[in-house]
Amino acid sequence: MDHPVYNFNAGPAVLPKPVMLKAQEEFVNYRGCGYGIIEESHRAANFDEVIQAAEANLRKLMGISDDYEVLFLQGGASLQFAMIPMNLMIPGKKIAVCDTGEWSHKAMKEMKILGADVDLVFDGSANKFSAIGDVKSWKFDQDAAYAYICANNTIYGTEYHEYPDTGNVPLVADMSSDIMSHVIDVNRFGLIFAGAQKNMGPAGVALVVIRKDLPARCPETVPTMLRYSTHIKSKSLFNTPSTFGIYMIRLVTDWMLEQGGVPAIQKKNEAKAAKLYAAIDNSPMFRGTCCKCSRSNMNVCFRIGEGNEELEKKFVAEAKAAGLIGLKGHRAVGGLRASIYNAMPEEGVDTLIAFMDDFAAKNA
Amino acid sequence: MDHPVYNFNAGPAVLPKPVMLKAQEEFVNYRGCGYGIIEESHRAANFDEVIQAAEANLRKLMGISDDYEVLFLQGGASLQFAMIPMNLMIPGKKIAVCDTGEWSHKAMKEMKILGADVDLVFDGSANKFSAIGDVKSWKFDQDAAYAYICANNTIYGTEYHEYPDTGNVPLVADMSSDIMSHVIDVNRFGLIFAGAQKNMGPAGVALVVIRKDLPARCPETVPTMLRYSTHIKSKSLFNTPSTFGIYMIRLVTDWMLEQGGVPAIQKKNEAKAAKLYAAIDNSPMFRGTCCKCSRSNMNVCFRIGEGNEELEKKFVAEAKAAGLIGLKGHRAVGGLRASIYNAMPEEGVDTLIAFMDDFAAKNA
Repeated sequence: MDHPVYNFNAGPAVLPKPVMLKAQEEFVNYRGCGYGIIEESHRAANFDEVIQAAEANLRKLMGISDDYEVLFLQGGASLQFAMIPMNLMIPGKKIAVCDTGEWSHKAMKEMKILGADVDLVFDGSANKFSAIGDVKSWKFDQDAAYAYICANNTIYGTEYHEYPDTGNVPLVADMSSDIMSHVIDVNRFGLIFAGAQKNMGPAGVALVVIRKDLPARCPETVPTMLRYSTHIKSKSLFNTPSTFGIYMIRLVTDWMLEQGGVPAIQKKNEAKAAKLYAAIDNSPMFRGTCCKCSRSNMNVCFRIGEGNEELEKKFVAEAKAAGLIGLKGHRAVGGLRASIYNAMPEEGVDTLIAFMDDFAAKNA
Repeated sequence: MDHPVYNFNAGPAVLPKPVMLKAQEEFVNYRGCGYGIIEESHRAANFDEVIQAAEANLRKLMGISDDYEVLFLQGGASLQFAMIPMNLMIPGKKIAVCDTGEWSHKAMKEMKILGADVDLVFDGSANKFSAIGDVKSWKFDQDAAYAYICANNTIYGTEYHEYPDTGNVPLVADMSSDIMSHVIDVNRFGLIFAGAQKNMGPAGVALVVIRKDLPARCPETVPTMLRYSTHIKSKSLFNTPSTFGIYMIRLVTDWMLEQGGVPAIQKKNEAKAAKLYAAIDNSPMFRGTCCKCSRSNMNVCFRIGEGNEELEKKFVAEAKAAGLIGLKGHRAVGGLRASIYNAMPEEGVDTLIAFMDDFAAKNA
């Protein structure tokens, strides 16, 4: 193999090489203190500097104003599926949901367990979740407690390229798999959340960006750890957070700023995705699985023919042997998937395309 | 300084040096796979081997039988304060609580938010939480849903040296700060939980050991992520867990087995604690803050005189300059505290004692 191993897993996923090397270098002796940051107290000055820098970097990269709080929580996006309705639902008011696949289903399931009424504004099941559709045509009842979307769908490979206008209804978005991959206007959202393990850092940290007026909705009956107000008051240090995870987010966001911030990274992401989709579209063997209108720049889903499972298995195995890891599609849909997050270098995509062309030629 | 830096923080805390070096060595290239375990999918064979080894190690070290499930969760002990009553409370039945300080208060607060009735079996506030008292005299109503204790109290420096007999009432224990520091009989407990960041690994993983009959109590109204049954069914992989944290637990438990397991570690812990308490008791300057009957082998709390805050401040600052970190007592009680978990080498305790003697002589 004349290239490094490229990791196309959907998450946990590849991290920027300079970040990995820096974390390794200071792992047992953080900036000369004599022990690792992973061993440091979350109340110590060393860690205080880390969490403040991580928040400042995120505010800069995403353009988060003082109208929003930035929280580092645990439990991943899946715990947010419960925390969001626990904190934001309003008795007698519906939650408007745009259903674009498995992750919005999981979020809806928790809303229903908690007794909320769901108003399905968009139902992607009609087209098997292969397209987001025309968000401009979506109608939001202005009496809804909030509206909910999943910004990028890792399993189906679809992504919102524009966001719906929900009027005065706070828009809540799961951005786990495309956060900071492209420029957004945070002010259009009531709450943005994301598991860190795709574009931001390792598994075990969930970022929540929440508009300051929203946490007051939470009823007294919600346990302390599940209230946003708890974590706001204590600046994400109500209890011991995932300190090493937050440290890694700080390093990743430092790296993103060095890259020129989100606009520069977006440009690279668009170029990587365009290249890979062109290779699929121009190939006699491969075909993309979703509508061109909604293709994700993060998770490129494709199949061999109409779904040749034997050949797909062979593809995954031979790719792995060639140092291209994690190309199997999600078990819910099968097929193939290349996750090309911020940290995937363009050379990784080029190497994958060369492998695909070679595989197609050999297995025509 | 003619010795390494010793980190006496109460948690996150010192990790075994060989574990830190091993994690550093393989950080960017895990066992030759070409990338780090922190970048690996939680569904991949590499991580599957890690989580299975971590569980097998814990079962061996703690003597956990097949009657119990072992779970790696997120949210720390603080989320368990809510999850335990959500899953185990029974309408109309009380929860028996033994109150030994701040951590049991926090657990009780969540029980009450969730509408449970608390039966205070022991109230340590009368002696300002300086002693656990005679657990043999405690009476447990056999109609209680469960009984609750905090096995080691980091803030007050007290620890149970025997556990109460609760009869048929399942005993739930917060062992965050003394898990695997001494031999216990898991079969006496219904549920044991512990944040990893003291004796097991980094912050961001909570271990739960639960008797298999208990999760069935959970009502349908509890969100999916907050049900033990969810994590049992999916073997802690319902969503992405803190993969790097679990990897570190695997390394720490490998190291513990190499040390001779919990009995050998207990012997070392008792020797370290005995030495440090003797130094305090024999000193003209220092005094222990809690009853000798309940002294913790993990968190040694002491003061200068009756609480000479000026001199204590000087002690903490000069100790830090001498490479002895994290000796300030918890902000709730003040004073001094040395946390001497499994990973603190005996040389660290010896160095601290020498510093204390020297400080006492110079500031007599």
